[in-house]
Amino acid sequence: MKEMWSSDLVNMKPYVPGEQPKDRRYIKLNTNENPYPPSPKAIEAVIAAANADLRLYPDGECGLLVDAIAEFTGLPRTRIFAGNGSDEVLALAFRAFFAAGAKARTPDVGYSFYPVYAAIFGTNVEYVPVNEDYTVPVGRFIDSPGGVVLANPNAPTAAALPLADIERIVAGNPGRLVLIDEAYVDFGAETAAGLIEKYDNLLVVRTLSKAHSLAGIRAGWAMGCENIIAALNTVKNCVNSYTVDRIAQAGAAAALRDREYFETTRRRVIATRERAAAALRGLGFEMTESKSNFLFVTHPEFPAKELFKALRERGILVRYWDLPRVSDRLRISIGTDEDMQTLVAAIADILGKKRP
Amino acid sequence: MKEMWSSDLVNMKPYVPGEQPKDRRYIKLNTNENPYPPSPKAIEAVIAAANADLRLYPDGECGLLVDAIAEFTGLPRTRIFAGNGSDEVLALAFRAFFAAGAKARTPDVGYSFYPVYAAIFGTNVEYVPVNEDYTVPVGRFIDSPGGVVLANPNAPTAAALPLADIERIVAGNPGRLVLIDEAYVDFGAETAAGLIEKYDNLLVVRTLSKAHSLAGIRAGWAMGCENIIAALNTVKNCVNSYTVDRIAQAGAAAALRDREYFETTRRRVIATRERAAAALRGLGFEMTESKSNFLFVTHPEFPAKELFKALRERGILVRYWDLPRVSDRLRISIGTDEDMQTLVAAIADILGKKRP
Repeated sequence: MKEMWSSDLVNMKPYVPGEQPKDRRYIKLNTNENPYPPSPKAIEAVIAAANADLRLYPDGECGLLVDAIAEFTGLPRTRIFAGNGSDEVLALAFRAFFAAGAKARTPDVGYSFYPVYAAIFGTNVEYVPVNEDYTVPVGRFIDSPGGVVLANPNAPTAAALPLADIERIVAGNPGRLVLIDEAYVDFGAETAAGLIEKYDNLLVVRTLSKAHSLAGIRAGWAMGCENIIAALNTVKNCVNSYTVDRIAQAGAAAALRDREYFETTRRRVIATRERAAAALRGLGFEMTESKSNFLFVTHPEFPAKELFKALRERGILVRYWDLPRVSDRLRISIGTDEDMQTLVAAIADILGKKRP
Repeated sequence: MKEMWSSDLVNMKPYVPGEQPKDRRYIKLNTNENPYPPSPKAIEAVIAAANADLRLYPDGECGLLVDAIAEFTGLPRTRIFAGNGSDEVLALAFRAFFAAGAKARTPDVGYSFYPVYAAIFGTNVEYVPVNEDYTVPVGRFIDSPGGVVLANPNAPTAAALPLADIERIVAGNPGRLVLIDEAYVDFGAETAAGLIEKYDNLLVVRTLSKAHSLAGIRAGWAMGCENIIAALNTVKNCVNSYTVDRIAQAGAAAALRDREYFETTRRRVIATRERAAAALRGLGFEMTESKSNFLFVTHPEFPAKELFKALRERGILVRYWDLPRVSDRLRISIGTDEDMQTLVAAIADILGKKRP
């Protein structure tokens, strides 16, 4: 049946994103979306872009969006690449730097898309075990035989490395690409953007899907030296010249310019996270110190898989992976305060305990 | 400088799309965009989708858009794949069926993205010379040693093969993928969609960028048997789960459902094309019989390259390639009647002739 397929695809295991249910209304704490809507200015910009010019191709270089990213980050335009969500940027980076047998190190617990990119682009990945407490063993990423791919904060562990450790890794791999995936950085970790002008082997990837509440619009970006940005453009322009549509470019640029809304929203998520973490600890959960918009929790008495199922039956979606090292854990996205109160009450009920 | 790049990228020549000028207002007849705006219903749908749900990821399977494509084409949903413009769909198809040394035949004059896909995915392409009149030599595409890639109508030649010839090619390559790129089919050629249920080696690719006036929104689709659709989904989900954003899905679906607007618009473009073709013939141009929204013209006395430059100076952009077999030709997109009258007057002036 698959005889026409490229042979390496036949057993390829694609990435499986968190469920996007259609059957009923859930409290959706499974895909790390933001519980708050995007900036009203982003919505206004989308509406303003809904005009006759949609007949024209977008700017393939995303000029106006790159302007907004430059303002947001303080970096020059020449060090920025805009793409269709950070997943596209990550895929382009794997193709540009880690293809066809190139080596890269990444933690064994990390974003589950990395092994998929590695499979389709032929990266020779060495998975470095994270420590027992899920922190990243920094020393193991110095003098990598190839590049380094690291989410900071890491997913799904929620734990972050301090900037000094990231700099040690970047400085410890001259001439080898260090990719830092900062999808969740706005929820309490330190960005490595400030190192871009100092190191020519650092690629930092960001998204508007999380802190900017724009998962539905598909926009992300990369920061690196001109040589790195040129490589991403080369791959992109060999595949699809226009991946970010006119409306996404306009909406994303407006969201980045509404700093105040961004600051307010991410602080609300952080505050809710701290309250939810305390309540779950009160129910006996153990967890990593989250610098993300999700918690990575385990309960000493109640198996994660059963809890996942019991929550689903009650209309609450969280994320569970039946994979080594994480199968006793749940990843719970931070919703509104009300969402998290409902979650905590449901868990308390499932555990047969009163809320503390 | 490029030592970190994957070695095959260093000399890769990306696709170069037609110019999207920012310096001044041009009459833009260089990228085959539709001169008319998208359906008002598409604009309304985009505006309606500009809401708080943009915080959520889109449906990665583009369910509601696939519904609209199924209605538009009369095919079952299981035979449809929706993507970020037909360029993305083509890239996924090259990766899925023509990667890593797989063979494919394509005309030597064709969409200039095909050689770029071939380079980045490692397709072993045999370029079959088109006839002197730019028609495709059908017999040369029977019993291909690998697959077949064919734009119908072809670009930039504008010429189309009749459906019977397409069927001969599909039937003449059992077990080998025949990819028919129908980006321009709505301007007068016959679609091969009706063959999908009969042949399991046929992949037909479409776009909303041309006849539906939605180049700015990035939406296209593929039609094929379930096995072919599964291959496209496998590659897509190894690269980026959500390439078509919420707003594009909504706008594209609404455009497809506004059949009346679509029919009116494409007929207007066809009528303008016939008038423009007659006027240019009156100025001494020779051309292929266009079934597309562009003309592929040559003038026996005036070099195409000089005409391209002279038109640009007058604020009119057309497309010119300094490539074998086409360097004496211009590709002129069909604009409004007024655009084309301005073009014809400018050319008459450049040629030093009166308009006929």
